[in-house]
Amino acid sequence: MSAPQSVRLRVFSLNCWGIRYLSRHCAQRYAMIAELLDREQHDIALLQEVWSENDYLFLKRALTTSHPFTHYFRSGVIGSGLAVFSKHRIEDALLYQYSLNGYPYMVHHGDWFGGKAVGLVILNVCGMKAHVYVTHLHAEYSRAKDDYLPHRTVQAWELLNFIRHTSADADLVVLGGDLNMHPQDLGTRLLRAHTGLRDCYAETDTFHGCEDGITLIADNPFTKKKDLLPFEKGIRIDYILIKGSDRVCVRCESMSTTKGSVPDKPFPYSDHESLTSQLLLQRSDCMGGRGRQRDSSSDTGAPVCERVEVVSEARGVVKEGLHQTERLRLLAMCVLAVGLALLLLPATALPWFYPHGHCALSYALLGLLEVLGLAMVVSGALLYILFTTQLKALSGTEASMKLAAVNLRGSNGGCWEEEEGTEMEAPASLSHPPPHGGARSEQPTLLDCKE
Amino acid sequence: MSAPQSVRLRVFSLNCWGIRYLSRHCAQRYAMIAELLDREQHDIALLQEVWSENDYLFLKRALTTSHPFTHYFRSGVIGSGLAVFSKHRIEDALLYQYSLNGYPYMVHHGDWFGGKAVGLVILNVCGMKAHVYVTHLHAEYSRAKDDYLPHRTVQAWELLNFIRHTSADADLVVLGGDLNMHPQDLGTRLLRAHTGLRDCYAETDTFHGCEDGITLIADNPFTKKKDLLPFEKGIRIDYILIKGSDRVCVRCESMSTTKGSVPDKPFPYSDHESLTSQLLLQRSDCMGGRGRQRDSSSDTGAPVCERVEVVSEARGVVKEGLHQTERLRLLAMCVLAVGLALLLLPATALPWFYPHGHCALSYALLGLLEVLGLAMVVSGALLYILFTTQLKALSGTEASMKLAAVNLRGSNGGCWEEEEGTEMEAPASLSHPPPHGGARSEQPTLLDCKE
Repeated sequence: MSAPQSVRLRVFSLNCWGIRYLSRHCAQRYAMIAELLDREQHDIALLQEVWSENDYLFLKRALTTSHPFTHYFRSGVIGSGLAVFSKHRIEDALLYQYSLNGYPYMVHHGDWFGGKAVGLVILNVCGMKAHVYVTHLHAEYSRAKDDYLPHRTVQAWELLNFIRHTSADADLVVLGGDLNMHPQDLGTRLLRAHTGLRDCYAETDTFHGCEDGITLIADNPFTKKKDLLPFEKGIRIDYILIKGSDRVCVRCESMSTTKGSVPDKPFPYSDHESLTSQLLLQRSDCMGGRGRQRDSSSDTGAPVCERVEVVSEARGVVKEGLHQTERLRLLAMCVLAVGLALLLLPATALPWFYPHGHCALSYALLGLLEVLGLAMVVSGALLYILFTTQLKALSGTEASMKLAAVNLRGSNGGCWEEEEGTEMEAPASLSHPPPHGGARSEQPTLLDCKE
Repeated sequence: MSAPQSVRLRVFSLNCWGIRYLSRHCAQRYAMIAELLDREQHDIALLQEVWSENDYLFLKRALTTSHPFTHYFRSGVIGSGLAVFSKHRIEDALLYQYSLNGYPYMVHHGDWFGGKAVGLVILNVCGMKAHVYVTHLHAEYSRAKDDYLPHRTVQAWELLNFIRHTSADADLVVLGGDLNMHPQDLGTRLLRAHTGLRDCYAETDTFHGCEDGITLIADNPFTKKKDLLPFEKGIRIDYILIKGSDRVCVRCESMSTTKGSVPDKPFPYSDHESLTSQLLLQRSDCMGGRGRQRDSSSDTGAPVCERVEVVSEARGVVKEGLHQTERLRLLAMCVLAVGLALLLLPATALPWFYPHGHCALSYALLGLLEVLGLAMVVSGALLYILFTTQLKALSGTEASMKLAAVNLRGSNGGCWEEEEGTEMEAPASLSHPPPHGGARSEQPTLLDCKE
């Protein structure tokens, strides 16, 4: 039997809010999610915030029949929280952990402890090679003062590069997850522009769900209304993005979200709404004009000028992150220095204050200062290591963005003004053409090109 | 002008041993390396252990003319130490940091502080897309008792998966670097079997250099002879590996290594020997029978049975690593518990020992115990976090290896005995065929296949 020319694929995505003992009604909600997935029989379910492996195992057992193929991505201290359930065979899997993900001392935010990552599973969908990515980026705790913007921007850059580099032979690319970014935020634009991924919500033929496709809504009883301000109704931060290839055209026929409450249930599945997209996959030899038109622009991403502009904007954010982290590292060095002073000075100085011998008070004071000094030395050293690592990740990303911008500029001459002071860093010197044909004394010729 | 049908590519690889202030004659050796690269004009130079960014910048300045394209990979606390210098345009770059890399408390080994990674640069070589990887894996400090074997095995697995997933559209794959593994070690076999990469040394037409291709040799004055035992002459742990594609056939025409001393110089370039391979790239439409034959077996890697066997062996090592790390985490929990006891008990118990009031001695004792307790609590907590993270990485790798083994078995039925007790974990149940055609009540049909 020949492979089908046209296939429907239903993709589900949900941030499960699965912090055991902290997220409300966690166990009951997992039971509801399992029931939903088993009933709805989506082809692929992409789950985030499945923090506990026991909860994953519960889902795995519950979905043995409906979704026989599954993969759980493990990383960080707690885990990545990412899980995939599929009706189609998972032929391969790969995890990429983001190099930046908040700060361990922001324990109440907790992102650092979950090793935020992007997981890739490669599925065989009726003979088509589907590269399906699931991810969850760092949360935005304050829209007005977003301290994590550089980290989330680095994550978005790493996400798009991981997708670009691992999807070369994919017939179809699907990305689902909680990006923690609004549709017009820098990271979302960066991701779309550089991968050519298209937003299902923006192009679906029919949509049923929350107004404007919002997925964190004021009507959800688990959501704190004040956290959503100034967006009274809610925000759209969960996505299903898609992209076809030369061989397969993909379009979103219909999309839906849950709307807070669940019929006959006392509470929703999660504090996020779930997304479901029904995709139509058509092999390129059977595509109609409409399908072909929809897909053609997506293969290379946005026009070069747009890609250069958005990567320059992102580079600015990363540079600001570099300066901010340099200041933090300086602070860590100060803490370390003061700690060292507290450790060493009191023992030396005490005889001057108590020349007639130590008393109980002097011992207590000495002890306290030493403990404080030790704590400061340890904290200072650990913070120094942390911020140095983060500086490496930020400067690595900045260099990678610069390389991309230089190469994009090289591929398209003249749709922007040359940035003043732009240094062509990635190539050591672009003004020197590579001496491909240069002769070297007593060496074989570099390129021995036989036409 | 049409693209050349046949191209020669000279690839250089060297572990530079560039630990500023610790590695002997570091600055002078970098000057020698720069002189060598500028004179020899290799197409690509892959450097490892360029730990200091200032040393990288020195090389970059010195090689502006000979190697106008360069990229430095930043990761970890100190850096990845990886640098690429190229005559050919670097069109893209990507870094993948290994999830396991030793222990921070093994400060004298230092591997943890260098963020060991694999770097990828994509080069345009006369119109051919060359994916060039550079890496450096965790060192082996004791052959007899190699505590880092599970970490290095995880690194080898991540390396091969990164290469497999990012080289789908490459015309040519080159991997160079210090693998810290002998040719027949598990990780080297795993890498070769699952990627199809071929060892230049094993297949070169002509070879000039150290006996058996060894790259860490007893004759190098920077090498401690006893560290090489039981291999008196030396070991081969640095490699250049290659692989062609459907479009391009690659073979190694000649290979050479340095042999310790350098003529007219007082010392060698490094404690490792450098490697140089001259590759012949031929577009597939101009290949002779010999070239085609050489390349044909490499595309899919080793036979399925061999791949299953080697991945099973690796899984055994990772499982042993899991048990070892579980024991370490238990130890961390004990340290934490004893620390807590020391913090809380003395303050409570002291009045019992000194019922008539505190004396100077009691205060000193109390202070010491509190400091010790605090140190143990902090160390215990940090170690608990460290080992938990490592357990996640190990169990993630184990699951990934299991998935690979299951899928390989599925693709080839019957060249091995079924392992007793093997659980088909990755797919929730392989015994249930995915219900592609299963009808769901009141749901659109899952696959709407139009033949």
